[in-house]
Amino acid sequence: MKNPRIYLDYNATAPLLPIAREAMLDVLAMPGNPSSVHSEGRKVRARVDDARRKVAALVNASPENVVFTSGATEAASTLLSPLYRMGRSNIDIGHLYYSAVEHPCVTSGGRFPADRITSIDVDSQGRVDLGHLKALLDQHDSASGMPMVAVMLANNETGVIQPVADVSGLVKAAGGLLIGDAVQAAGRIPIDMQTPGADFIFLSSHKMGGPKGAGAIVAQGEIMMPAPLITGGGQEKGHRSGTENPAALAGFGAVAQAALEGMDTMQKVARLRDRMEQDIRMAVPDAIIYGGESRRLPNTSFFALPGFKAETAQIAFDLEGVALSAGSACSSGKIGPSHVLKAMGMDADQGALRVSLGPATTEEEIDRFVSILKRISEKRTLAV
Amino acid sequence: MKNPRIYLDYNATAPLLPIAREAMLDVLAMPGNPSSVHSEGRKVRARVDDARRKVAALVNASPENVVFTSGATEAASTLLSPLYRMGRSNIDIGHLYYSAVEHPCVTSGGRFPADRITSIDVDSQGRVDLGHLKALLDQHDSASGMPMVAVMLANNETGVIQPVADVSGLVKAAGGLLIGDAVQAAGRIPIDMQTPGADFIFLSSHKMGGPKGAGAIVAQGEIMMPAPLITGGGQEKGHRSGTENPAALAGFGAVAQAALEGMDTMQKVARLRDRMEQDIRMAVPDAIIYGGESRRLPNTSFFALPGFKAETAQIAFDLEGVALSAGSACSSGKIGPSHVLKAMGMDADQGALRVSLGPATTEEEIDRFVSILKRISEKRTLAV
Repeated sequence: MKNPRIYLDYNATAPLLPIAREAMLDVLAMPGNPSSVHSEGRKVRARVDDARRKVAALVNASPENVVFTSGATEAASTLLSPLYRMGRSNIDIGHLYYSAVEHPCVTSGGRFPADRITSIDVDSQGRVDLGHLKALLDQHDSASGMPMVAVMLANNETGVIQPVADVSGLVKAAGGLLIGDAVQAAGRIPIDMQTPGADFIFLSSHKMGGPKGAGAIVAQGEIMMPAPLITGGGQEKGHRSGTENPAALAGFGAVAQAALEGMDTMQKVARLRDRMEQDIRMAVPDAIIYGGESRRLPNTSFFALPGFKAETAQIAFDLEGVALSAGSACSSGKIGPSHVLKAMGMDADQGALRVSLGPATTEEEIDRFVSILKRISEKRTLAV
Repeated sequence: MKNPRIYLDYNATAPLLPIAREAMLDVLAMPGNPSSVHSEGRKVRARVDDARRKVAALVNASPENVVFTSGATEAASTLLSPLYRMGRSNIDIGHLYYSAVEHPCVTSGGRFPADRITSIDVDSQGRVDLGHLKALLDQHDSASGMPMVAVMLANNETGVIQPVADVSGLVKAAGGLLIGDAVQAAGRIPIDMQTPGADFIFLSSHKMGGPKGAGAIVAQGEIMMPAPLITGGGQEKGHRSGTENPAALAGFGAVAQAALEGMDTMQKVARLRDRMEQDIRMAVPDAIIYGGESRRLPNTSFFALPGFKAETAQIAFDLEGVALSAGSACSSGKIGPSHVLKAMGMDADQGALRVSLGPATTEEEIDRFVSILKRISEKRTLAV
């Protein structure tokens, strides 16, 4: 009998959880636009509100401070705006500073012109260089508006967790705004919007086992909001127009609730990942694990097999029935050197393999993966 | 036995068609990000490509000219941009002219500042005043960039079909770009991107019986494109970043195909709507049907019961088991006078009721609706 495939690419997207599928099916069977005032509309609206409460609960925020979007990239493009609003007043954001290891949805700069964007250095573990950030903020020209800093809670490639509380301290001292990409962190490590940290975070449903097509902006307070990116009918209190996607949001809410209630599962995932990395070191003694000296997400491992191009290895794994990533799955077919490795000062030419586990990943799958790794690794000299 | 509810609000959103549900379930069961190069990713990518071919076929366009979005509002916000790109060259759009009966996703102006937007008058049927459009285009200052004109193919409230070919002639003569909101037209009247018309149209899945959360921009050619609204990983050839929603897109593709193959059904819908309007005139002789002297969508009827506020009537219908609209379902709970009626020079104070049918609407439902209408209408003097 053929072995089933092993899916180790949860950071690209997690398979849909049954609880999300059920919530979606339920809502898909309901006719009605959530903006319609008739019974059909109100029933669907109730599901959107329910999802909002569940997503808020995951990050200990107020449901009023959740704005749903079609995904994290839309959320980032919305948040990275040189124009914010406080009631009817405009607030200018003068400059965007983001860490060099941010996701392309942040490094694209959103609505900031290129000459108002600066990258913040990271250390060899991929953590924000706080000294560099402080120097940048000290030099910030407040006449142009507030500084905005974007630092991810955890990196999508390495899983490295950023010192967000420290970053927040510097940003607050400089009178700035902090945007936190919580896409990979959400559901994997606790997030609490009531403790000092980002002023805004953004989330993605499908990285947590929810459907694609749902994301959220979560604000600490309701005072300042970015000028809307998508305008029209005024949904989401005017912060994001367009008919909501109640089925996807219901699925998002379901996985947010499941993630909050099942946060303990992540300890099991972390043990499995740690054991896997020990086995990788045993199987391939010269493997390089990136970010391994830092606090990391429980589910992510990013490593290189010296002398073996990651893209080549990825194809070999695919043929052997293992789905994993060479870098991030950020855009169609485009494969380039990892900007994360480069920023960490590592040799990025041959790339690295990203193995990302999920709550459903089994010991047996990891055993099989490591044995395949060993076999593939032994062919290295031929492949170079 | 209690009568089942009657859903007559297809222009707000159509109930999900079984064919869309099946296509979605199929894709929801597939792990994988369409940008991942492994087998799981490629399988999902194939579904996105399949959906693209089907959506393109509905409007006789090339699949290469379809950019998927999260919905029509996002598509509109993307298209209504003062900055377009042709390869690496920037093209400035100087001014946006839209008809006074456009949907809020267009009247919000997208990325145009308010001082670069002008409304085009319509006649008493809600059709674009071609003379006014010509006068506006004659006065357009080309030094600021090309003129952009946005005219919907058919109106969401009245169903009135615009003279798009005539509009296109004027826009071409002025060297401008024409954007066509095809949200309500798609699947209800034939659309052919190979005949003179809009340079770009935009579509919504859920108005055709597909899932919410999917829309598209369709371009006549691939030469000029708006500066992307959502930036990041470079999906959709860089025109719209963010992980695609393959399940929703598969549902969208399925209903696009069904709509194209079943366009004849709309003749049945039109007969039913016409018969309903005769019955309404019989039951309520002073009812005013708006746009009835113009070519209209086969499924839409927009009428007032003099002396009876549309919002009050809508609630009465809801209590009687009929879901219909007072104006459009454009945003949460916000009910205001119809800008469409106002633009048509009608008394907009008491509003109007929108009844929008679908392929599944039955003769029996329409009979019941008209008898409820008669009963409700008889209470008019009490309600005023």
